[in-house]
Amino acid sequence: MTVSVAVAGTSGYAGGELLRLLLTHPKVSIGALTAHSNAGERLGSQQPHLWPLADRVLQPTTVDVLRGHDVVFLALPHGQSHEVAAQLDESTLVVDCGADHRLADAQDWATFYGGDHPGTWPYGLPELPGARTALAGSNRVAVPGCYPTTASLALVPAVAAGLVTPDVVVVAASGTSGAGKSPKVNLLGSEVMGSASAYGVGGVHRHTPEITQNLRRVAGDAPVTVSFTPVLVPMSRGILATCSAPLTDPAIDLAQARAAYEKAYGDEPFVHLLPEGQWPATASTLGANTVLIQVGVDRAAQRLVVIAALDNLTKGTAGGAIQSMNVALGLTETLGLPMTGVAP
Amino acid sequence: MTVSVAVAGTSGYAGGELLRLLLTHPKVSIGALTAHSNAGERLGSQQPHLWPLADRVLQPTTVDVLRGHDVVFLALPHGQSHEVAAQLDESTLVVDCGADHRLADAQDWATFYGGDHPGTWPYGLPELPGARTALAGSNRVAVPGCYPTTASLALVPAVAAGLVTPDVVVVAASGTSGAGKSPKVNLLGSEVMGSASAYGVGGVHRHTPEITQNLRRVAGDAPVTVSFTPVLVPMSRGILATCSAPLTDPAIDLAQARAAYEKAYGDEPFVHLLPEGQWPATASTLGANTVLIQVGVDRAAQRLVVIAALDNLTKGTAGGAIQSMNVALGLTETLGLPMTGVAP
Amino acid sequence: MTVSVAVAGTSGYAGGELLRLLLTHPKVSIGALTAHSNAGERLGSQQPHLWPLADRVLQPTTVDVLRGHDVVFLALPHGQSHEVAAQLDESTLVVDCGADHRLADAQDWATFYGGDHPGTWPYGLPELPGARTALAGSNRVAVPGCYPTTASLALVPAVAAGLVTPDVVVVAASGTSGAGKSPKVNLLGSEVMGSASAYGVGGVHRHTPEITQNLRRVAGDAPVTVSFTPVLVPMSRGILATCSAPLTDPAIDLAQARAAYEKAYGDEPFVHLLPEGQWPATASTLGANTVLIQVGVDRAAQRLVVIAALDNLTKGTAGGAIQSMNVALGLTETLGLPMTGVAP
Amino acid sequence: MTVSVAVAGTSGYAGGELLRLLLTHPKVSIGALTAHSNAGERLGSQQPHLWPLADRVLQPTTVDVLRGHDVVFLALPHGQSHEVAAQLDESTLVVDCGADHRLADAQDWATFYGGDHPGTWPYGLPELPGARTALAGSNRVAVPGCYPTTASLALVPAVAAGLVTPDVVVVAASGTSGAGKSPKVNLLGSEVMGSASAYGVGGVHRHTPEITQNLRRVAGDAPVTVSFTPVLVPMSRGILATCSAPLTDPAIDLAQARAAYEKAYGDEPFVHLLPEGQWPATASTLGANTVLIQVGVDRAAQRLVVIAALDNLTKGTAGGAIQSMNVALGLTETLGLPMTGVAP
Repeated sequence: MTVSVAVAGTSGYAGGELLRLLLTHPKVSIGALTAHSNAGERLGSQQPHLWPLADRVLQPTTVDVLRGHDVVFLALPHGQSHEVAAQLDESTLVVDCGADHRLADAQDWATFYGGDHPGTWPYGLPELPGARTALAGSNRVAVPGCYPTTASLALVPAVAAGLVTPDVVVVAASGTSGAGKSPKVNLLGSEVMGSASAYGVGGVHRHTPEITQNLRRVAGDAPVTVSFTPVLVPMSRGILATCSAPLTDPAIDLAQARAAYEKAYGDEPFVHLLPEGQWPATASTLGANTVLIQVGVDRAAQRLVVIAALDNLTKGTAGGAIQSMNVALGLTETLGLPMTGVAP
Repeated sequence: MTVSVAVAGTSGYAGGELLRLLLTHPKVSIGALTAHSNAGERLGSQQPHLWPLADRVLQPTTVDVLRGHDVVFLALPHGQSHEVAAQLDESTLVVDCGADHRLADAQDWATFYGGDHPGTWPYGLPELPGARTALAGSNRVAVPGCYPTTASLALVPAVAAGLVTPDVVVVAASGTSGAGKSPKVNLLGSEVMGSASAYGVGGVHRHTPEITQNLRRVAGDAPVTVSFTPVLVPMSRGILATCSAPLTDPAIDLAQARAAYEKAYGDEPFVHLLPEGQWPATASTLGANTVLIQVGVDRAAQRLVVIAALDNLTKGTAGGAIQSMNVALGLTETLGLPMTGVAP
Repeated sequence: MTVSVAVAGTSGYAGGELLRLLLTHPKVSIGALTAHSNAGERLGSQQPHLWPLADRVLQPTTVDVLRGHDVVFLALPHGQSHEVAAQLDESTLVVDCGADHRLADAQDWATFYGGDHPGTWPYGLPELPGARTALAGSNRVAVPGCYPTTASLALVPAVAAGLVTPDVVVVAASGTSGAGKSPKVNLLGSEVMGSASAYGVGGVHRHTPEITQNLRRVAGDAPVTVSFTPVLVPMSRGILATCSAPLTDPAIDLAQARAAYEKAYGDEPFVHLLPEGQWPATASTLGANTVLIQVGVDRAAQRLVVIAALDNLTKGTAGGAIQSMNVALGLTETLGLPMTGVAP
Repeated sequence: MTVSVAVAGTSGYAGGELLRLLLTHPKVSIGALTAHSNAGERLGSQQPHLWPLADRVLQPTTVDVLRGHDVVFLALPHGQSHEVAAQLDESTLVVDCGADHRLADAQDWATFYGGDHPGTWPYGLPELPGARTALAGSNRVAVPGCYPTTASLALVPAVAAGLVTPDVVVVAASGTSGAGKSPKVNLLGSEVMGSASAYGVGGVHRHTPEITQNLRRVAGDAPVTVSFTPVLVPMSRGILATCSAPLTDPAIDLAQARAAYEKAYGDEPFVHLLPEGQWPATASTLGANTVLIQVGVDRAAQRLVVIAALDNLTKGTAGGAIQSMNVALGLTETLGLPMTGVAP
């Protein structure tokens, strides 16, 4: 079986990464490639690294162009995917890399994105409890944000196991590609090289309610609070999240903490707890669908500290999207997804 | 008046930065330059950016060489400065960039550094309450660690004003120069470029007790706990600390928070609260003795979030050392210290 | 004596660097700061590293605003400075960081920039033979391009001494700040980090005729050809030019080559021939008005190879401009100009 | 058919890259992994990005361990591979990533490497004229140096077509991974980030005779001279070579130049001439076995300028090695070799 796939938004970073991965997917044939302002150009002018598709001409992002594929990936600016998706057949699997269908709470949507809530789709993070079941056979998938993927995978096992109270602090260093490809002064190489800076401080980043929502799924009755600060650092790809929360019991030790993560991820193909003493570096995950995790117990501060590293464009976006497609279609979950990073 | 200055440890990063700044200090004449394994070489072979001193020959780090200067800066590995200092005259101002004399608690020293506590000297962070008085006229100065400088300046005003409970979380992104110049695989350019990684997780980093000590000075009876995680990011210089703590009262608003920082730093020449809406970037402080701070109130998480940026080699080490020398000698505090970063 | 200085174009990189240096110039008082689209804003919002001037409000770039200062620096897009300059008094020293008045040949101007040639001003590279004389007392200065500064300082001594035929190849690695601050996709951090790329290949870069012009001044009757290729590399500042040309005589050795450079630059405060065996790195010149040069003789290829490193924004633009101002006004040439780079 | 493969030198960068690629090779089973000082450790401690092999234990690099595999890759320091290879069976394909068997001229070996010439093996650059024939069925392969791969692919078509005289100038910007993983001060992240520097200037770099040798194969009677300068730039991977040579006829135009490259590489799976107006960036080749080439004609300087980009660890070392293995064993040449770079 081969599934035909269209990708909307192929001149951006998420679209390019989707194509890079789909090119090696043994069950996929790449169909229409669309773009907005770059429609009519060769893909090679926008994505010179995708040589095998260089001569493909980008079509406009319309329902007519996208229709007729088994799968449609939407890598569009927030707020644009639900209109496109609404016109695509029920028989088409629509995988939305944008935010439109991630949040379950209409009030959260209104507060953080504005306007009417476009609705909630099955959430494309198969490693969360219950997620695979919801994804299997679904014809709609909401791919998580890159920060929520990182922070949720880092914290869910500890919260679910009752090791920590879900009053968490997340500080995540991120490469610049997460901010997209549209040109802005603050994202110029001259500005970001040699510099670290915070943004979206104080709980205002749009990924905050999404992290909260994921932790609530496993927190039982405990109220969940999330203090999230993203930090831009001088690299193109990668997120390193430092996550911590108060221990529920001062006696909890490293062995208990490790056991919770081994239980959660021992059978996962893409999420790995590192051996004791080894800490994750984002370079180890470059271009891979891999998440590396390590945990520490801070006895003096009585906090569990969890570090998670991933590639924001791969597992954080396009890889997670393809993994979810595999689950939704009943394909082997690991198809088309690199296990090894490109390092050094 | 001109003071004669010797610098021990001039082939390292801290020593090089001391010399870069001292070269522009109008009241200083640069005397002996010493090194350990590079003694006998031209400074130019070790520090090619210090052209005006390129032909100076490095002498061995001995008391005989250092003796006879008004001021001696020690930029030596931890554990080496107290032996040298013990043999230098009471009339010599000794400014120690190492850790030997920072901690007040002998048990902390034993736990984090090991061995006998070499004693406590006046602490070279003039912006802390009471610090200038202790430094004035002193003949010994312990220069703070770069992370404690950043985190303490970020948090002390809020703790002192009672805005937060001193149960703080600090995640600090740092450039690689803080790890020094001795060659290690994990510090190779190939390893650090394109990668972020955590280290010293779980309260084991040696700067943790120093941050705690500084916050205790202003915390009154409240118990102080510090969860500190350093993150290595791909830049040579700079620390961006994301610091947060629970609000003591849910009604505390941004205006109150800003007022506390304006009161603390309004008259400080080197520490600046940014206007609302502007967040610090380390590049703005490159090579300057400047600290840029911004505060945010996270209403949902009920935490104060403070971001501070500085150059770990300048305000974080050598600039702080020279500022403290100025205070100790009664010179104008700002002499020899750049106010503007080299950006972009 | 204090000279009043206005700077036009202060929200860009050249304008920012001019202000950073002027702040430490002991004979300068900083007057009007102007901008185009950012007029009305605080300087601090555009140049957060220039803290001492943060609250200065940017005025529009008009002749009325600029008039009445002793010196006006123009850091404007190419083609805009000659109109402004034409309306400024003869008694005002106008220092143009743009290209408008660099080229002597109207045909070169037409070919590489287009339109009518705005005329030729004394050339702001004091180290070139005869340049100081032309600058002294002049009320107009054309600041060289950053690549021509690097390549000319690297090659002029060898050409002037007849060591090489002036058929030169220049490949210059450059940081991104030379491309300016206006946002373009190819200059995004995500695009430039981890990547080297060539542009303006094949003699089409606008700095080619300027390098040729400088070499012609010392080449006598020999025809000058310049093959120039700029290469963008992942750093914010710095140019490293690799320049080579055929030896005029196979017997020429390193001692002769070094002698020519020592003679040319032995008394220069800002241009240094490194000791044998030491090769220039741009980091050594970061933020300094310094040029570091090394020469090699390739016996097999019968070529002289000269490497030159500088900071494109300092000696390559703003530092060179201020150095030229000092010469034009009869001030000490080194005032306000850092000698040491900020490294590492 | 599956071939069993051993890799010697797996804790270094070349060894790691070999394993990354071999993991996806459908005809390969990975056998013994060896190391020198890290023997006995888990691969995961040395190469954390190679998760699927993390628990493999490194064996010592001995003939006993390597023996019995169909293919042995040697990623050892120069001078060590010929001793190992001499003891391996004729029936084993030995692919040497080191320099030992690249040079045909014993005098060149003595001059640039010293000692006795270990002999010459078929050269692992299949795209060179005649190379595939020599590799097919061979049981020994000398993998080229990364710079010679880049410069030779850039220049051979023009030299072979008689477009240029083979008096070439090559300036190649390179990432730091080419310098290997052993810790040295000049390769520290603090030293290389924000800095470009030249080394091996004046024809002394060991890759110079190898480039010369490759050009001689196609230069006919014309004497070949190569001026080669490597430049270290702040990125982990990638080589961008700027190559130029005098046109043999001033009438040669871009169409002729492009025709020569289209003829040479039109059928090559890994080497691509970009469309006019598009210039190569190394990021487009990251982790891929791809070479991107563009040509320009500099009419004024009468030179052909060729820019080539590749990943020094992939096509420049490990990818080229596996490609050569495929050719030697008669496998499909493209197996196990990524076509698309990981960008941005």
